[in-house]
Amino acid sequence: MPSNVSAIAIDAGGSTTLAVVVDINGSCEAVVRSGPGNPVTDANRAAANITDACAAALAASAHQPHMVVATVAGTLSRDFPELAESLATRALPTHLILESDLLSAYFSATAAPEGSVMVVGTGAVAGKVSGGRLVSLRDGLGWLLGDDGSGFWMGHRVARAVAADLDGRGPSTSLTPQVLEFFVDVPRRSGVRNKDLAALLTWSQSRTPVALAQLAILAARDAATDDVAHTICSEAAAHALATLDSLTQGDEGAVVLGGGVLDPSGPVGREVHARLGERARPVADGIAGAALMAVRELGGDADEATLARITRSLAQR
Amino acid sequence: MPSNVSAIAIDAGGSTTLAVVVDINGSCEAVVRSGPGNPVTDANRAAANITDACAAALAASAHQPHMVVATVAGTLSRDFPELAESLATRALPTHLILESDLLSAYFSATAAPEGSVMVVGTGAVAGKVSGGRLVSLRDGLGWLLGDDGSGFWMGHRVARAVAADLDGRGPSTSLTPQVLEFFVDVPRRSGVRNKDLAALLTWSQSRTPVALAQLAILAARDAATDDVAHTICSEAAAHALATLDSLTQGDEGAVVLGGGVLDPSGPVGREVHARLGERARPVADGIAGAALMAVRELGGDADEATLARITRSLAQR
Repeated sequence: MPSNVSAIAIDAGGSTTLAVVVDINGSCEAVVRSGPGNPVTDANRAAANITDACAAALAASAHQPHMVVATVAGTLSRDFPELAESLATRALPTHLILESDLLSAYFSATAAPEGSVMVVGTGAVAGKVSGGRLVSLRDGLGWLLGDDGSGFWMGHRVARAVAADLDGRGPSTSLTPQVLEFFVDVPRRSGVRNKDLAALLTWSQSRTPVALAQLAILAARDAATDDVAHTICSEAAAHALATLDSLTQGDEGAVVLGGGVLDPSGPVGREVHARLGERARPVADGIAGAALMAVRELGGDADEATLARITRSLAQR
Repeated sequence: MPSNVSAIAIDAGGSTTLAVVVDINGSCEAVVRSGPGNPVTDANRAAANITDACAAALAASAHQPHMVVATVAGTLSRDFPELAESLATRALPTHLILESDLLSAYFSATAAPEGSVMVVGTGAVAGKVSGGRLVSLRDGLGWLLGDDGSGFWMGHRVARAVAADLDGRGPSTSLTPQVLEFFVDVPRRSGVRNKDLAALLTWSQSRTPVALAQLAILAARDAATDDVAHTICSEAAAHALATLDSLTQGDEGAVVLGGGVLDPSGPVGREVHARLGERARPVADGIAGAALMAVRELGGDADEATLARITRSLAQR
């Protein structure tokens, strides 16, 4: 196929946006990185960062891509007009295709048109892929109503367990001295309440609830030695597996697993990978999948050979 | 004792503030009511409402009280300078004594200087009383880090259970159609996600998290007929009892129980009252206790006879 037909593929994440120019055969060039690209958190900032990544990828490429394939969080329930406007302002390609970042995570591990994917980072969401499209979702409902077993869920449990420990209502845990480190600079005041507990309250009230997700790492670190931390991690794994079970319902296809909590080197990811056995396919990010989806949109063969070519050419950059 | 020595007693609650003028013998007159008086939620509004109640009580009384004894939420961890300023501006008595509303709830049921009290409404907090003072606390840590078994805790469980039901991850529950009634006016959009679930998300994101406490009543209503509702109520009761146990540690004194969740006519209150037996003493509000504390501050006898006089004279108004 003529290799001068190309697109900009984008994987927009909560902390980093990745962009690459990919041709119809899956050759990638000009891998670039910009800031947070989650439109659910901040649509204008996400549009600006994705646009920056597109401009940088275009400037570094010999191709003249005419299309942008962007995989982002939350587009299934929300429009993202800010991005098309931002691309037009900078004279970038305005032929824009928006897809879910669940799908780019999925296609980063396999080109199979049927399977499942789960991403557990700050949030937790799973999706079923059929005919190469996302046909159903489970969870991804946010920290208040869902995200069972997510980084927020774990960090919230850590904070509540430490509060109960300091309050004399819960078991002593090694998480407590580690959480205290997070707010050593909050002044302690005397009162009827435990001073550290009062300081924990002050600290937690000074930030957005979802910031508690940063405490998840403490549970993962102490899972082998502390009962409270162990329970948090094993319940998080049970939640992830229950969410997957409700989606796949006995289907034996591949399950792509992404996000920091499901990393197989941590206790939650290890348990989930162990339960799924050979069906589990870990992915680090979604840029390869976004590139494969771009090849599909360009009319190329979005098969395993193309995915292998994408993965190889990304590894060289 | 000379009955012309008097004070304004205030019980400032999250939805209503009550005020009464009480003399040194416990005779009450001029019971008045104003709006929310919780300084933790909104200190300026609370100060204004408490001041309004003081002014109205003073205007309706033949006494010339020189002191204000106000029991409010959260003063143990926070100053409340707005109230003294507001009283001074209106030329009301500025001899102000602030106490915890846990103590006024306690003294509404008993004049005993030793005992325990728990109030479970939107939040959940318990305290130990010794020498007529609050000497230790459990929970009351707010919806994010604590309030185990509270109205928020129950309503949050209801919302998550309904979300899981609509998402195909959790058991079917009679709570679902009732929660749907809360947001019938949210437009339904088609998408990969269940339309009612998407509408529930939109609805919950349009208000403050603590507003989920309004769903607690649904769990109480269906506790006898729905497994999910039953579990929520029995776990709430278990949390309340665990919080009390950690505080009283085998001590067999009276336990005063206040707040809507612990009302003995509901499933959570019924279970907690049943477990505590004769030690349980229900209270509806804290105005009698605030009046008893005012008698104590005036130098009167804050004993059972005075409490009985306060209760009788309040009942006549």
